[in-house]
Amino acid sequence: MEYKKTSDTYISRSSTLERDYYTKKSIFKKEYKNIFQNDWICAGHISEFSQSGSFKVINNSNESALITKDNDGSINAFYNLCRHRGTRIKDEPCGKFKNNIRCNYHGWSYDLKGELISAPHMNKVEGFKNNDFPLHQIPLKIWEGFIFLNFNDEVNDFDNFFKPIQNKFRLWNIANLEIGNTIKYQIKCNWKLIIQNYSECYHCPIIHPRLSAIHNYLGGHNDLFSGPFLGGYMEFSDNKESITSSGNLCCPPISTLNEDSLNKVYYYSIFPNLLLSLHPDYVMYHLITPLKTDKTLISCGWLFSEGVVSSNKYDLSEAINFWDQTNKEDWYISEQSQLGINSKKYQPSPYSTQESLLAAFDRYYLKRINK
Amino acid sequence: MEYKKTSDTYISRSSTLERDYYTKKSIFKKEYKNIFQNDWICAGHISEFSQSGSFKVINNSNESALITKDNDGSINAFYNLCRHRGTRIKDEPCGKFKNNIRCNYHGWSYDLKGELISAPHMNKVEGFKNNDFPLHQIPLKIWEGFIFLNFNDEVNDFDNFFKPIQNKFRLWNIANLEIGNTIKYQIKCNWKLIIQNYSECYHCPIIHPRLSAIHNYLGGHNDLFSGPFLGGYMEFSDNKESITSSGNLCCPPISTLNEDSLNKVYYYSIFPNLLLSLHPDYVMYHLITPLKTDKTLISCGWLFSEGVVSSNKYDLSEAINFWDQTNKEDWYISEQSQLGINSKKYQPSPYSTQESLLAAFDRYYLKRINK
Amino acid sequence: MEYKKTSDTYISRSSTLERDYYTKKSIFKKEYKNIFQNDWICAGHISEFSQSGSFKVINNSNESALITKDNDGSINAFYNLCRHRGTRIKDEPCGKFKNNIRCNYHGWSYDLKGELISAPHMNKVEGFKNNDFPLHQIPLKIWEGFIFLNFNDEVNDFDNFFKPIQNKFRLWNIANLEIGNTIKYQIKCNWKLIIQNYSECYHCPIIHPRLSAIHNYLGGHNDLFSGPFLGGYMEFSDNKESITSSGNLCCPPISTLNEDSLNKVYYYSIFPNLLLSLHPDYVMYHLITPLKTDKTLISCGWLFSEGVVSSNKYDLSEAINFWDQTNKEDWYISEQSQLGINSKKYQPSPYSTQESLLAAFDRYYLKRINK
Repeated sequence: MEYKKTSDTYISRSSTLERDYYTKKSIFKKEYKNIFQNDWICAGHISEFSQSGSFKVINNSNESALITKDNDGSINAFYNLCRHRGTRIKDEPCGKFKNNIRCNYHGWSYDLKGELISAPHMNKVEGFKNNDFPLHQIPLKIWEGFIFLNFNDEVNDFDNFFKPIQNKFRLWNIANLEIGNTIKYQIKCNWKLIIQNYSECYHCPIIHPRLSAIHNYLGGHNDLFSGPFLGGYMEFSDNKESITSSGNLCCPPISTLNEDSLNKVYYYSIFPNLLLSLHPDYVMYHLITPLKTDKTLISCGWLFSEGVVSSNKYDLSEAINFWDQTNKEDWYISEQSQLGINSKKYQPSPYSTQESLLAAFDRYYLKRINK
Repeated sequence: MEYKKTSDTYISRSSTLERDYYTKKSIFKKEYKNIFQNDWICAGHISEFSQSGSFKVINNSNESALITKDNDGSINAFYNLCRHRGTRIKDEPCGKFKNNIRCNYHGWSYDLKGELISAPHMNKVEGFKNNDFPLHQIPLKIWEGFIFLNFNDEVNDFDNFFKPIQNKFRLWNIANLEIGNTIKYQIKCNWKLIIQNYSECYHCPIIHPRLSAIHNYLGGHNDLFSGPFLGGYMEFSDNKESITSSGNLCCPPISTLNEDSLNKVYYYSIFPNLLLSLHPDYVMYHLITPLKTDKTLISCGWLFSEGVVSSNKYDLSEAINFWDQTNKEDWYISEQSQLGINSKKYQPSPYSTQESLLAAFDRYYLKRINK
Repeated sequence: MEYKKTSDTYISRSSTLERDYYTKKSIFKKEYKNIFQNDWICAGHISEFSQSGSFKVINNSNESALITKDNDGSINAFYNLCRHRGTRIKDEPCGKFKNNIRCNYHGWSYDLKGELISAPHMNKVEGFKNNDFPLHQIPLKIWEGFIFLNFNDEVNDFDNFFKPIQNKFRLWNIANLEIGNTIKYQIKCNWKLIIQNYSECYHCPIIHPRLSAIHNYLGGHNDLFSGPFLGGYMEFSDNKESITSSGNLCCPPISTLNEDSLNKVYYYSIFPNLLLSLHPDYVMYHLITPLKTDKTLISCGWLFSEGVVSSNKYDLSEAINFWDQTNKEDWYISEQSQLGINSKKYQPSPYSTQESLLAAFDRYYLKRINK
């Protein structure tokens, strides 16, 4: 890596990634193989499943996951295709099964644990046994209320992976929060530019004047510096209580928080696709799905304390609209980054002291893709 | 082919095609080479050409056919490009030439048999002779009023191909029917999924409740089981006379039918791109054009007895609207099949006893593509 | 090259290009490498830059040029990306910088000559010097008021290239004209078909009846026959003064013209991407940017004598609307050419005596692409 032909002063310092990582199809394919269809991928929050039979569909390149809640309250994930002719079972992003998972083509039916229980006209096929044709299961784990899937059957060790941040987010009691809203965005840039953008507030004064009035980009501190978990906090400016249109709390603070955490917002990235933003009164999360080298799908969710959403007593749009606007500011500049990086003149360039988390993300990313 | 790693019970039984046949570009290209630009392709019905000079344009991948009726009533097909600079001569799907086929770029003109009759300013080009620059002819044959083209100059034997079904459809007198309407659809799935969907009524109870009220999916019988021609009939339910919104005939039955055929609808596929649906009062046909591995164009036409359309005495939308709706139900579920089959977890799976025609189609298809 | 299998009479005569030049991705890439990112490319006219800080963005495949006017009146071009994280600096097609060129992501600022003058938080990065991170300069030259860029750092000799037409267009005083309007078009055909279409009026009687009433396609004469500069003039019909809706001048003629040039319109192509159309009262130019083998962007501009546009005394739409309509007629037939040439039956075919400039363009093009 070099910055400039006439100078090798910066060589071996921390610098941005090479262009190929943002533009090459072959690297994008490798990312799916070694990361998105190999590592644990966040697929949402348990509060999105209110009843038995509730389902959610998550697409990941050619694969589609059908996540559903069983009668005993457990959540399972299946590859979203019927074992008969391969038909996608559910197309809509979420909904509710009545009793069984029925394919709407020829009526093959599975119970909520994925076992085939009815396959019309197959009884005359010699040797056909329902037991041989369950839905294909996808490994699923839950951490702090977040659902993680793994599209690799030879699954990695989930508990060991999350050990370094065990109890770190205990205070927010995230598993008990309830989903208030989700918004989906499609963005014309590489997925890594989204995470890099999230990992510094150096850009806040120019890109987010409203956010900068709530917290100064220099008023923060990182507490996770390397590996798959990266982030830290920012302190609120005087008279500011949370990140909302008014700068005040939009609902009572999460009751389990301590004094210290009431004055801060915490931003963390969980490799590879979860961004976690912890506010005094709500938790926001972004799920990131790469679509092409230069196209990314993002689903943003807002979680509130139990009862807050259903009470209808609070104007939660104070939080949601503020971030929706701020998100769009970030997506715009990330798209501009993609366009510039396409040029042959783009070269790795030194990170400033405000960008140490980007360097850490890049290092961990390179380890994963080149494993 | 296997169904499930833990069981090889079903191996060697009839099962669905491997995933690659629905997803791989290289196979799609081979299909064009060995089938769609090699075999006889149906391009429409002679009643679409009412006068001399009437023309129709049919696109087939990079090729385009200009089909037109001559003064002596014969129908010819030409590659749709001028011999001068290669300009496409006609862009619109159909229309009428005044006298000659004139290219609208520089005015080169051809008679309706494709001979160059005028080429301004070419007389000064040494050695240029009009005779050397006729439009490129495309082999064309007519069977039961349907026009077939062949984009391969080394043409296959047409008469031998159709011998097995000589006179089979004589009763419907299709060559004398008249076109009432055509509707075009663009569908996001592989072309074979369309034919497979057409080849069974196992899906009718779920996908087509209105159609199922007219004929029960178990009340049929196949009479063509193998090779390029596949199909059979379904008997109407009590008090049903045809497939229309009301279940009654929408116009007088085709006069040449016998008592037996008045109580049935006949469904046949003619390899590779014609689906033929024979009703007591009308004949419907689908023409299938593959666009990509997962994109297909379908043109659906409705033919009625001579004079029926022009009389304006009958509500033919009874037939047309019913099938337009039913078509869309089929296209939707075929698109869902494509999505599911994209998954790495899709594997060939056993056909039920209701799906023998699909197995027969797959067998003939494999023979053609691997020829 | 051959025209017809049964005849080799025409072989070795001048004929249209082989199909691959219009359809193959590998040739398109070679065109970018050997021509569009190697040769001097026209990027507009100096009158588009009215003040210091005025800028214009020109995209050329993956590259983007940011052209801007300095305080001393000179015009510079830079690769349109920040030296920090590679962000595209300006996205909009044109505008005005206040004082500096500031990247809107993290605020890195450059002066109008491209020198980095401010990079927040970089002072703490060991060894970082602003001098090492100027914007990347793009070689820029001006000819007759037209701006030319070169995306190849090992630049070709500009003055030698233009020597053959030194002073040829002196009478029009183009550097002093002022931009009246620009219109952009996106066209579904290869870029060469646009230039070939421009290089003959054989098509005028059919495609442009209104233009044919102003000048007869046979009433012209070529005076540049080979190499990168090709063209000639057409004489106006009786009572016609210029190419406008009325056929009259739309404003006073360019004052420096002589009697002879008042009765003609001159059409020239400057290889590879400038078409220059000189009228008694205005100069029109087309800039051509290839996007794909079958997709081209065209920007058309109209230049008028100093003061004409700002005076608001003349109805310049007489010229602009006439050519906008005529342009669209040309784009349509060029798209039809692309469609026809896609066919396997397309073969090189003889040019008429009206198409000698096309043959000359093809010859020079083949020399450049195969260099």
